[in-house]
Formats: sequence, structure tokens, C-alpha cells
Amino acid sequence: MIRVGIMGYGNLGRGIECSLKQNEDMELVAVFTRRDPSTVSILTEGVKVYHVDDAIKMKDDIDVLILCGGSATDLPEQTKEYAKYFNVIDSFDTHARIPEHFANVDEVAKANGNIAIISAGWDPGMFSLNRLYASAVLPQGKDYTFWGKGVSQGHSDAIRRIDGVADAKQYTVPVDSALEAVRSGLNPDLTTRQKHTRECFVVAEEGADLARIEAEIKNMPNYFADYDTTVTFISAEELKANHSGIPHGGFVIRSGNTGWNEENKHIIEYSLKLDSNPEFTASVIVAYARAAYRMKQEGATGCKTVFDIAPAYMSALSGEELRKSML
Amino acid sequence: MIRVGIMGYGNLGRGIECSLKQNEDMELVAVFTRRDPSTVSILTEGVKVYHVDDAIKMKDDIDVLILCGGSATDLPEQTKEYAKYFNVIDSFDTHARIPEHFANVDEVAKANGNIAIISAGWDPGMFSLNRLYASAVLPQGKDYTFWGKGVSQGHSDAIRRIDGVADAKQYTVPVDSALEAVRSGLNPDLTTRQKHTRECFVVAEEGADLARIEAEIKNMPNYFADYDTTVTFISAEELKANHSGIPHGGFVIRSGNTGWNEENKHIIEYSLKLDSNPEFTASVIVAYARAAYRMKQEGATGCKTVFDIAPAYMSALSGEELRKSML
Repeated sequence: MIRVGIMGYGNLGRGIECSLKQNEDMELVAVFTRRDPSTVSILTEGVKVYHVDDAIKMKDDIDVLILCGGSATDLPEQTKEYAKYFNVIDSFDTHARIPEHFANVDEVAKANGNIAIISAGWDPGMFSLNRLYASAVLPQGKDYTFWGKGVSQGHSDAIRRIDGVADAKQYTVPVDSALEAVRSGLNPDLTTRQKHTRECFVVAEEGADLARIEAEIKNMPNYFADYDTTVTFISAEELKANHSGIPHGGFVIRSGNTGWNEENKHIIEYSLKLDSNPEFTASVIVAYARAAYRMKQEGATGCKTVFDIAPAYMSALSGEELRKSML
Repeated sequence: MIRVGIMGYGNLGRGIECSLKQNEDMELVAVFTRRDPSTVSILTEGVKVYHVDDAIKMKDDIDVLILCGGSATDLPEQTKEYAKYFNVIDSFDTHARIPEHFANVDEVAKANGNIAIISAGWDPGMFSLNRLYASAVLPQGKDYTFWGKGVSQGHSDAIRRIDGVADAKQYTVPVDSALEAVRSGLNPDLTTRQKHTRECFVVAEEGADLARIEAEIKNMPNYFADYDTTVTFISAEELKANHSGIPHGGFVIRSGNTGWNEENKHIIEYSLKLDSNPEFTASVIVAYARAAYRMKQEGATGCKTVFDIAPAYMSALSGEELRKSML
């Protein structure tokens, strides 16, 4: 059994817990929280919740520690700290800061003989893998990544900070005609506006100026100004009834050419349609936690990403079983 | 530069040659043929064609030898023979015989300190990878592989062997309603007939009994009897004008559930739409030839499949560049 610890028990941590239940070679041994542990109740019977300060004491009881904090402030500190004591894995998703995070974590993990996998999830993660495989196979071509339809937590939060907004949910939606143009092999150059639209469902406080809220959303730099944005005001009840899920997904498409004169066209498409963004992310992380454990058993150390990990390490099946059943 | 040799110069060998032209870190150094080399003209200027009997003499001039023979009789002998002298790669695609082929090749490659990659292509190959990744990430779920629309060489050949048939082309076509049922997450149980149809375009010899030919095709066991098959008689000119390409493709879909009570549904879909089956297969093989070279440089030996190879080995970019641009 691979003994797993969860650091942080929000949506992602709970998703990890659910995923571990589906993987018979893995078991949850501890959940660590910054809150008072007595206030945190988890789903798995017989497993204890500890304060984060007690984590290091348990280093010999845990094969892989899964870090479920946020990328803005938690993971840049946590991953390199806990890689001193544990094999760790995170879902660090600030793409621009990945090289820096990798370097920091690699140094500590190597010095302490541990494996650390960073940026596991679906983007970065499964989408990254598909960008790499497709571009290696079709070097003459063009990549496209579309996200959605799905909830953007960051954009929803940005709307909630506007004066007069009680609650909000924002969906990122890929533009069908852009997807079709890419699939047809036209290799279009697409602007931000042409690729995605943003749909906002907003609950206003009583008496709030709806026109002003709508204008503030639509003109918000970085978040909405570069997109065609729709704003729909709804009641708190309707938001709860119809918009409480956290679905997401998207598409990675590479369109490329082969042949002596590049006369033949090929389209590679990978897509995800997810009812629960955190639970799917958690499922990817758990499969890579298995990989971390196995690579460590073989003597590997240091920081790894999905690019550095042979797929067989992720499966509970043996190499022989995989070749027989899936190749 | 990675020095590559091609063994066998049919559609696949020519595809390898075209793909090498697109990969600046690789160069073609020799083509080997069973025919009289003076009768084989290739596309790359300055590269010589040799008889297969001269291959072993060139073992120090070639980093990876790509074997482009057929899976029925060529590769079971060739791969294990040439793995004595070279790092080799093949696209062995008889799924049921992969375990046996792996064992034979592994023994020789290890004994001689070489790397041998078998079954690289798209199925087995990219489709296998997607089956593995998706099932590792969603252990509670169901896999579906659909092929087409594309030309099946084996089925086209089977029609050509019928008395009175001058030429023929057979397309395997996935059934749209089955694809939609899978995508919707219904996890249907599908029979062979429900998944694919077979479309046959047949050129009959003058005076042939068309009704008999059609009946022979539709009732042919293994090839057509289990499918809804359509037979269309056309002229040789029409066959040449409209059916001379070798397109193919298909879909790997996994539908799975997560959550404490498996209440959330997820769909992972990978699809290929290929103008040229052999050129795309060749492009996959060439990327894995790079991986073979690099893994050998690091001291690895023995037989490998796509499951055993970390994705980064396939790209011409460094780990640092990959993390920066694709993760």
C-alpha cells in the first residue's frame, strides 16, 4: 500500500480523498490542516486530521504528501519546504512561474533524496502532455488550447469584489466557430476575443446600480475587457440551483502537415469535459502520486513534471498487464 | 545529429524519410531494401540505397535503425535480428502477439546493450497512451476505441481476392450515434455492429456477377459478416480519382466517475483525423527514434514501448524549454 498524506482540506483535498478510495493500492493515512483539527471532519473513517505543525513528525508514516494549497502564496513556500522531508506532489498552476518553482523544488528534493512532482493536474498536466506529444509528432504545425465551458474561480472572485455584488459565477466558453476553424486545419490566427467568451451570472445586492455593475465587469482590464462578455443578473436562489457546480474542460488541438512537400494534413485533438474540476485534478494528482512512489523506489530523486514521467508509472497494472490489455 | 537508417522502402519507409526532413536534429544516412538497390530511387539527395545484406556492415554509422516491414512475417524476425546490432524501432501492430514480440526483442536487445522500441505508431501507439493515461486518471470508468473514417488495407485486400474483383477500397466508419452515446457518458455496451460500419468501393471485372460479389463481401466471416456493410460498384477511373488516398483516424474515449459516491462524470476524448495513415505513423516513429537515441545515451537497454518512455525524450526541445513553453 502506498501511504498518502493530504496537506490542506478544501475542494482539492476532498477530491484527493475521494480519488484514493478508487485506488486500491493507495491509502489515506493523514490529513493536515491550518485550521483547528477538531473542526475539520473528513469522509474517510478511521483517518485522523492533524494540525500542519504535526506533519513533519509523521514523515516516516507517509510515502507521498499531496500539497493542496493555492499557487499564489501556499505552494511556492510549501512544496520546497516539505520536499525536505517527504516525496511531494503539487498542482502549481501559475504557468509563468513554473521554471522558478521547478528550480527551487529540485534543489531541495535532490539534497534530501526525495521526489517532488510539480504542476500535476489538467492544465498544467494532461493538456501539457498533449501539447508535447502532438508537437513532437507533428513538428510542422500549430497548437491551440481552448478552455471551457467551465467556471473560472479567479474571474468569479473578481466580480464578487465589485461594489454591490452579493455573489457571482463566471463561465469561460470557447467560441464554436473558432474551434471549427482550427479543426478544419485552416491554422487561423485567433485573437483573445475570437477564442473565448465570458458569461457572468451575478447576484446584486438590493438597490444596487445594475448598469454600473455590468459596465464595471465588462471594462475590467485583463479579466474581461479583451473578451465579449455577457452579464446576467439572477437571484441568489437561481445561482444556487443552477450554478453551484464546478464544471470545466477544454480542448488541445494541433493541426500539422507531413509529406515531402507538406501536402498532407493531420488534426490531433484532446478534450476534457469535467463535471468537477477539483475532483478531476485530484484524480490526475493521485495517479502521479503513484508514479512518485515508484520512481523513488527505483532511486530517482529531484523535481519532475508530467514530461519526465513514463506513463506506465501512473497505472496500478504491471508492465506486462499493460502491454497485454492496453497497447 | 541522430543518424537514422530505414529498413524497407514502401509507404511507411517513404513516410519516415519525409518526417526526418522535418526534424533538424536527425538525418537519414541509409535506406535498405530487399529489391535491387539500383531500382529504388528515394527522395533525399545524397543518400544511398543499399541491399539489406549490407545493413550490418553499417552498424557503426547508424544510431537508430527504423524497421518498416509488415507485422505478419517481417517484424517478428527482423526486430529481434537487428536488435543485435542496432538500436531499433518498429510499428508491430498485431495486438495479440505483442507480449511474445516484446519478450523476444527484449532478450536480444538487453544481451547486446541496445534499445528496441516496438509497436510505435498510433494504434498501437498514441491510442494506447491515451487508453493508459485515461484509465490511470479515471480508474472507475469505461474505455472506447473507434477507428475511422479510414482505409483498412487488410479489408481492401480481402475484397480484391474475390473472384471477379479488379480493385477495391474499404473504409471503416465509426457510427455517429454510438460516438454520441459514449460522449454523453451513458457507458453503453456496444456490439461490433453498433460501433462501426464498412463501406466498400469495388471495381468489378467486365461481365462479373455483381450480386455474387456483393454477397461474398457481406458474408465474409471476421471481415464483414459482423458489420453493416455497403458495397458500391464504381469504375477504375472513379476509384483512382476519389479513393486513392490513405486517410485514417479514430477516437479513444474514456467515460468515468469521481466523487465519494461517484456522483461526478468526466469524459476524456482523444481523436486523430489523418490525411495519410503511413505518414502520421512514420511521424510518431521518428519522435520515438529520438527517444531511443537519448535513452541509450543515458545507458538504458532492452525493449521498450510507448508506456515506458517519458514524453520529454520525444521532443527536440530541452527540459527547460519544454517547461517554459508547453507546461
